[in-house]
Amino acid sequence: MVKSFASDNNSNVHDEILRKLTEANIGHYISYGDDKYTQKAKLLFKETFGSNTEVFFVLTGTGAKVCALQAITDRYNAIICPETAHINIDECGAAEHVLGTKLLDVATSNGKLTNENIEEYLHFIADEHHVQPKIISITQATELGTVYTIEELKNLVNFAKKQQFKVHMDGARLCNAAVTLNCSLKELTTDIGIDVLSFGGTKNGMMIGEAVVFFYPEDIKYFPFIRKQNMQLISKMRYIAAQYIPYLSSNLWYTNAKQANDMALYLYEKLKSTLPEILTAKPESNALFVKLPNDIAIKMQKERFFYAWDIKQNLYRFMTSYDMESADIDDFVKFLIKYLRR
Amino acid sequence: MVKSFASDNNSNVHDEILRKLTEANIGHYISYGDDKYTQKAKLLFKETFGSNTEVFFVLTGTGAKVCALQAITDRYNAIICPETAHINIDECGAAEHVLGTKLLDVATSNGKLTNENIEEYLHFIADEHHVQPKIISITQATELGTVYTIEELKNLVNFAKKQQFKVHMDGARLCNAAVTLNCSLKELTTDIGIDVLSFGGTKNGMMIGEAVVFFYPEDIKYFPFIRKQNMQLISKMRYIAAQYIPYLSSNLWYTNAKQANDMALYLYEKLKSTLPEILTAKPESNALFVKLPNDIAIKMQKERFFYAWDIKQNLYRFMTSYDMESADIDDFVKFLIKYLRR
Amino acid sequence: MVKSFASDNNSNVHDEILRKLTEANIGHYISYGDDKYTQKAKLLFKETFGSNTEVFFVLTGTGAKVCALQAITDRYNAIICPETAHINIDECGAAEHVLGTKLLDVATSNGKLTNENIEEYLHFIADEHHVQPKIISITQATELGTVYTIEELKNLVNFAKKQQFKVHMDGARLCNAAVTLNCSLKELTTDIGIDVLSFGGTKNGMMIGEAVVFFYPEDIKYFPFIRKQNMQLISKMRYIAAQYIPYLSSNLWYTNAKQANDMALYLYEKLKSTLPEILTAKPESNALFVKLPNDIAIKMQKERFFYAWDIKQNLYRFMTSYDMESADIDDFVKFLIKYLRR
Amino acid sequence: MVKSFASDNNSNVHDEILRKLTEANIGHYISYGDDKYTQKAKLLFKETFGSNTEVFFVLTGTGAKVCALQAITDRYNAIICPETAHINIDECGAAEHVLGTKLLDVATSNGKLTNENIEEYLHFIADEHHVQPKIISITQATELGTVYTIEELKNLVNFAKKQQFKVHMDGARLCNAAVTLNCSLKELTTDIGIDVLSFGGTKNGMMIGEAVVFFYPEDIKYFPFIRKQNMQLISKMRYIAAQYIPYLSSNLWYTNAKQANDMALYLYEKLKSTLPEILTAKPESNALFVKLPNDIAIKMQKERFFYAWDIKQNLYRFMTSYDMESADIDDFVKFLIKYLRR
Repeated sequence: MVKSFASDNNSNVHDEILRKLTEANIGHYISYGDDKYTQKAKLLFKETFGSNTEVFFVLTGTGAKVCALQAITDRYNAIICPETAHINIDECGAAEHVLGTKLLDVATSNGKLTNENIEEYLHFIADEHHVQPKIISITQATELGTVYTIEELKNLVNFAKKQQFKVHMDGARLCNAAVTLNCSLKELTTDIGIDVLSFGGTKNGMMIGEAVVFFYPEDIKYFPFIRKQNMQLISKMRYIAAQYIPYLSSNLWYTNAKQANDMALYLYEKLKSTLPEILTAKPESNALFVKLPNDIAIKMQKERFFYAWDIKQNLYRFMTSYDMESADIDDFVKFLIKYLRR
Repeated sequence: MVKSFASDNNSNVHDEILRKLTEANIGHYISYGDDKYTQKAKLLFKETFGSNTEVFFVLTGTGAKVCALQAITDRYNAIICPETAHINIDECGAAEHVLGTKLLDVATSNGKLTNENIEEYLHFIADEHHVQPKIISITQATELGTVYTIEELKNLVNFAKKQQFKVHMDGARLCNAAVTLNCSLKELTTDIGIDVLSFGGTKNGMMIGEAVVFFYPEDIKYFPFIRKQNMQLISKMRYIAAQYIPYLSSNLWYTNAKQANDMALYLYEKLKSTLPEILTAKPESNALFVKLPNDIAIKMQKERFFYAWDIKQNLYRFMTSYDMESADIDDFVKFLIKYLRR
Repeated sequence: MVKSFASDNNSNVHDEILRKLTEANIGHYISYGDDKYTQKAKLLFKETFGSNTEVFFVLTGTGAKVCALQAITDRYNAIICPETAHINIDECGAAEHVLGTKLLDVATSNGKLTNENIEEYLHFIADEHHVQPKIISITQATELGTVYTIEELKNLVNFAKKQQFKVHMDGARLCNAAVTLNCSLKELTTDIGIDVLSFGGTKNGMMIGEAVVFFYPEDIKYFPFIRKQNMQLISKMRYIAAQYIPYLSSNLWYTNAKQANDMALYLYEKLKSTLPEILTAKPESNALFVKLPNDIAIKMQKERFFYAWDIKQNLYRFMTSYDMESADIDDFVKFLIKYLRR
Repeated sequence: MVKSFASDNNSNVHDEILRKLTEANIGHYISYGDDKYTQKAKLLFKETFGSNTEVFFVLTGTGAKVCALQAITDRYNAIICPETAHINIDECGAAEHVLGTKLLDVATSNGKLTNENIEEYLHFIADEHHVQPKIISITQATELGTVYTIEELKNLVNFAKKQQFKVHMDGARLCNAAVTLNCSLKELTTDIGIDVLSFGGTKNGMMIGEAVVFFYPEDIKYFPFIRKQNMQLISKMRYIAAQYIPYLSSNLWYTNAKQANDMALYLYEKLKSTLPEILTAKPESNALFVKLPNDIAIKMQKERFFYAWDIKQNLYRFMTSYDMESADIDDFVKFLIKYLRR
């Protein structure tokens, strides 16, 4: 079966996770999280991210982000984020619709926020005519496939905290970033001083479900109400929690992300020797951005769908997945050559 | 393993559904619903509810209700519902939080809305000082375990439509009602003139996921945006849709609901001969409400959790599930006798 | 010119207030409250309500209530109020629309909340499925024209505070209540432990504008943002503030409210001797509720408009105003007799 | 008394308007708009803007904009506006807070939107992941003091309508623009095809109050509810409406705006001959933007307050008012020279 380079969420569920779901499917458990799988998964989050960590399971990436942000904003606050942030551009205005919160989106060249982006809004503070920026939301790896270095993160978070800001990290592809930086998940979050992380596994071998991870216990006090009123409380919670057990305990997060990243690099290398003219930058995670003639791209998408990123700039995105192997890449490169070499 | 009478969502996933999930777990599919399982499930909804039916899959019961209601309300509208409605009492104010909509909740004796409840608010219409009631939300079977007859439904829906109202049905336990009334799902919805149904299977053998079912195509125009901005769009949609395939095609909805209802009746009959003093009414679906001394109930809940319904009235709820058999009931009755007969 | 008994807001602006507006109309002042009239009015509020008092001027009664409530609620909180509360019934769902907050409205016989009404919701606390009640909103004098005694208020507020609730008072007719109880405004608010008061003068001789009065400084920290984002910040604030100067400094609030109350009593006495059959209870403030045949009432309303309160119960409301004199009452009684005595 | 160049809302109320308020202060009128002053003002709006025009009075500029925008948006819509738009930057996030609507703000050099700004977002249409842009909001004169020509407006509005967009105009300083362009108010709105206008007079000699003006009757159907639930319905409406009577019938809007514009030009000319180095562009309405050394500006602001526009660029704003005369300008120039010529 041909694999899709449209998105890493086109992939299926890793066997080990499906097995765990089957295992968890025995008998009755009290709903809403009062079950042994949820308890076990919570412990694994503490082991992975540190003992102060508190985790809550929700259902979608957007849900995780909106709930996380609600926990650290008040109604008069604004959130500074890159204009490419998923929450800004790809969620049908969920943050504004549900929270009534303004996103102060800033242009960036690479999807990463800088101290200057925060500084620009500091004159808003204490002026009643302006919403009050108090949160930054950053994505690691970014929507552009780039990865903040540990140094960059520390510098940004330190500056934000000095200004009394809170920091949310969108970790839909945090594992890919950790593989790139060759560091632990804790080194990328807890140790940096992130306040709250939305941590998904769907793009990396899970079926459904996201985790909202808090690093400072004072922020969780009202989170159960936030989750419920944002329609993110599942009754049969064991089926979300259970997936995180192999994901965190048997290093599946790492193995899967590494394979996806490796395949992106392998694709990049293959293209360098076959279609170097379409390449832009070397991939930092599992996304490759290429330049294609728009008319040909349209024909290609009909055979194998992938996303246009910016038609004006002829920019298209290829994403690799945890379940791809070199044969899948070879096959895809053949497909590309068929259209682009005639 | 002891089964829980706390709620029908304490049960596990029916084998046939889990098998379908495993079958759907092969290879890549385009996300967000562009896959063959979603297409198949959509067809099954048309077969079950009629060819005008359009279905959208979402994630939680609250999400299904809020999305369904958003599709048929404007910002100045209010929703009339029984005060016992799940959306009014058990969803942490989600409808108000997300939609900003006022619920006009009315006291009922049995969880059912009547024409009089609508009539009471008609003087609000066209007065700028009042929110404009334009929707009723009814639950079938109700949160009190009662079931509207077809006649009652027709009468209510006809009256509502004559007043230009739209009708939402919360069908978290619609299958149990259909079993009770010995009718099809279509006879309870499409044929009555319901506008939109939220249709869950979690309480009846599914893992996760809900369906928002529209009966009038003009109401769906903007629903994809509503679903996304309410954080109810799952990327790997095949895993929700696939569950509905056996549920609808092999009559699992019926077999499961029938078993749950039968077990509630069996429990009722057993108690009639052993603890008749705790009984209230004969169950109409899969919920049994009993009167217990509060001090003893607290002890019982520690051994086997079940919900208090109204402590002032000594009222408690027992729910039966699709996976219970007479031995489970016999065992539960023994447990009840142990506490209540000494 | 015939005066209207429809509402006390049909009256005009008291001469002394209009004179003050004319006086304030000289030259330029920095907008948004940085002017000497606003400073002076703020001082008068401290003199009237106590030195901890902080006041903010807004524009409508609904605006005052929504802003006040936002200051003391979080998004997962609910507000307990009588079902007759203006905020519940007469504001087109503003609290739900703007704040997304659920009102838990309770039936009362006389428009007054009791400890039992709070108690009924205490089992909601800490349960993630329920919005969290944490605020009560009471109206003094009530929408039914009744007046809480000091004792009733103390009892209710003490109980609420013991449960960690905050207390909002809708004081649209607070002055009328103070006249009835023969006490100061401070004795009805600050001394009782009210947290925040919305205090209007429009019904008592002012032109436009409301005051949100805080009694605990910790609640005002973010109020300037709340006022602005709720569209209640006027640029030329001197014209709101200036009205409160004669209102508070020359006891206009008292003189005006006393006259309105006296006229309601005078109307009651006149009717006792002419149309005793239409009377219900003796007025406690400036509202009189009477029973009229609906068919005759409709004809009467065409000649002189007044409000139906509850048509099913043949209940209608007459309101007296600060600018009425006994001749206006005599004239109105003649009008009533004309319709009701033939 | 020294006049302020901080904002045109620092000015007082024009005598003719205050006289009208005094005249309107006789006797009782039914509240909420059922009075002869409101009826008269409504007629004047039809005379001024055309017979299809429907006007509703509200209280603040932010209120007018939010209400107007709510009337033409649905919950999944976004509004395209310049990043300098008052609604985007100066209203504490009111649109997001109250409507839950996303503003798609675009960078401009001169505060004016172009067809290209709309085009950029057209690929959002019909994609469920993106909010759906369907409204543009433009300001005339802009917040930067520039004025769209009739040609520019026609071009923009035609393009927007071809894309099925609706057009909102923020007319806080519409009169100043009409003076600049030497055209009628109708030529700038009705004749262009604007859908809804928020039209304030506070910056041009009124006391308080704004008008929401609709040009297509189908948009007003639910506006009374929108106004009420957005806390913008005043009870004693005659006091808002009455101000618009001299404003529209005796050409006060024109005389006042002309004076303000003339004074801005006069200030510009005076500075050209005394402090030419601080000038940027010739004023198009009643705002002048100048470059000042920040350290000196801070000292100047302490003596006479005016606003910094962009400190990084040393940009400051001076605004002239309807009530200024050449002597006020001369005096202000002396003040400027005192600080800038030593």
